Amino acid sequence: MAIRILITGGTFDKEYDMLNGKLDFEETHVPEMLKLGRCTVDTEIRTLMMVDSLEMTDNDRELILHSCRSAAEDRILITHGTDTMALTAAYLAKEQLDKTIVITGAMIPYKFGSSDGFFNLGAALAFLQTLPHGVYVAMNGRYYNWDNVRKNKKTGYFEEINSTV
Amino acid sequence: MAIRILITGGTFDKEYDMLNGKLDFEETHVPEMLKLGRCTVDTEIRTLMMVDSLEMTDNDRELILHSCRSAAEDRILITHGTDTMALTAAYLAKEQLDKTIVITGAMIPYKFGSSDGFFNLGAALAFLQTLPHGVYVAMNGRYYNWDNVRKNKKTGYFEEINSTV
Amino acid sequence: MAIRILITGGTFDKEYDMLNGKLDFEETHVPEMLKLGRCTVDTEIRTLMMVDSLEMTDNDRELILHSCRSAAEDRILITHGTDTMALTAAYLAKEQLDKTIVITGAMIPYKFGSSDGFFNLGAALAFLQTLPHGVYVAMNGRYYNWDNVRKNKKTGYFEEINSTV
Amino acid sequence: MAIRILITGGTFDKEYDMLNGKLDFEETHVPEMLKLGRCTVDTEIRTLMMVDSLEMTDNDRELILHSCRSAAEDRILITHGTDTMALTAAYLAKEQLDKTIVITGAMIPYKFGSSDGFFNLGAALAFLQTLPHGVYVAMNGRYYNWDNVRKNKKTGYFEEINSTV
Repeated sequence: MAIRILITGGTFDKEYDMLNGKLDFEETHVPEMLKLGRCTVDTEIRTLMMVDSLEMTDNDRELILHSCRSAAEDRILITHGTDTMALTAAYLAKEQLDKTIVITGAMIPYKFGSSDGFFNLGAALAFLQTLPHGVYVAMNGRYYNWDNVRKNKKTGYFEEINSTV
Repeated sequence: MAIRILITGGTFDKEYDMLNGKLDFEETHVPEMLKLGRCTVDTEIRTLMMVDSLEMTDNDRELILHSCRSAAEDRILITHGTDTMALTAAYLAKEQLDKTIVITGAMIPYKFGSSDGFFNLGAALAFLQTLPHGVYVAMNGRYYNWDNVRKNKKTGYFEEINSTV
Repeated sequence: MAIRILITGGTFDKEYDMLNGKLDFEETHVPEMLKLGRCTVDTEIRTLMMVDSLEMTDNDRELILHSCRSAAEDRILITHGTDTMALTAAYLAKEQLDKTIVITGAMIPYKFGSSDGFFNLGAALAFLQTLPHGVYVAMNGRYYNWDNVRKNKKTGYFEEINSTV
Repeated sequence: MAIRILITGGTFDKEYDMLNGKLDFEETHVPEMLKLGRCTVDTEIRTLMMVDSLEMTDNDRELILHSCRSAAEDRILITHGTDTMALTAAYLAKEQLDKTIVITGAMIPYKFGSSDGFFNLGAALAFLQTLPHGVYVAMNGRYYNWDNVRKNKKTGYFEEINSTV
């Protein structure tokens, strides 16, 4: 069961640039994370962009959608900034592709030692292998349907818009 | 969807005892891992034992089985040493409980900085929420049915006994 | 031999604020670093300020100088942002206190996993215990006299202004 | 000021062997530690052996002494297991070389995430550049003369045999 991984940036992949003291992007850390996780799932990684999701445009989302549509695999993992994850999920869902698409990310950069990113990556890969076709956000150890998820900007946790609990 | 987590020890929870230079168990790290992963899944943790799985006895497995059977939750995560994971999975499967049971662990202790344990925990929790009733081993980003899994002791990776690939 | 430690902020103590995605200060990490280093040197820690050294004013430097002068200890460690370390060293040196003062810091925040800060702290404490009275900058495993040091902003390394090599 | 670094093993350089679950030696981590510490001190590294210091023989100590004597540099850092550091220090001191020799190590392996080793390495390099000729042990942020140091095996801290405090 092959999985396509599309990298778009986000906190997940941010690094500290010691020369200017700012947060920046270099290469994605997903390959080293898969190695550290001793992952034997068959994956194919493509870096589409390296952007803060607040700066992601509709052109960027169109590129992501195009990459999902044209991928040979029907299971697709997207790493993404948390701020507009739900927006991109909705953008992709409109297309009703016969694929399982899971969007994940991190609240703290993977390189910063105490990141949720490695945990999220494991969970997202697992959800991809077991959920039916559809578009989902995987954060906080859970998955959310694309039309029932938002990030609570005060707490930094994801939650359902209409909780059934 | 509540999940019961049963701790049994294994490499996952091993620590370095600086006074005798040996690997040892103290408390489980699962609660701090769930916090670091910013996990919002409803979990209930019980430490059953803290043993190297090569030293796990049938009495120990009976205790694990009893804890699975008597748990109020029908989704159960077991952290376990990797060497006899498949053995414990088979032991639990014989009972045919109407529950989803996922056994996970790590090849490198969580406290040792470059462990697969945090990734495995994320994946195991995700598989628990999506797989039908049954007994599974979750390692290397994948899940294995209890009757089709073994640890390759030369490589340290898990593999299917009868690969369908 | 007691050592006074004065905290002023700098990259050393910066943290990632997950809610706004920016680098920020909370508490200093020096106490936990001393514990991790299993340090048995008698130290007394005071947080004077938590600022980026590019924003440090002469008022701030006056406060640092006052704290050096009035400290009971004659060995003083100052944690400081790297950009104006040499400036503060010169400011303090003018006063010609009968004390050994060592300024140190980090190019990468201590909390970010691959920081030079822990190494620098060990070196700075050692230099403090062995150097004669004077004002020094300790970075990159070396010490520099206050009047012969600058940060090379292109490389991020400290160097002597007049190298005798 | 060039420094010769002699590697002998010890907890400092121990690693976790995931295939047999034991602690083991592979390569020394000193080069990557110097890089992480952004160290610009001129150093020359030689690995003499990779042993637990409880298993170090007089032959091993003779080799260390020979390496100290024949080194071109008069400043020598030795990484060493903590259990017999004081013994090796005394062995080297008998020779009364006109050199500054500092022995250091760690209570927790460098690779295990919360090690004192990186702090100790910074301190040891600093002591080497500032102490007069002689043989010293550098641990816990302090230095000890070769004839006035012992490891307290109950606490894991080093202490003076005759405290003058």
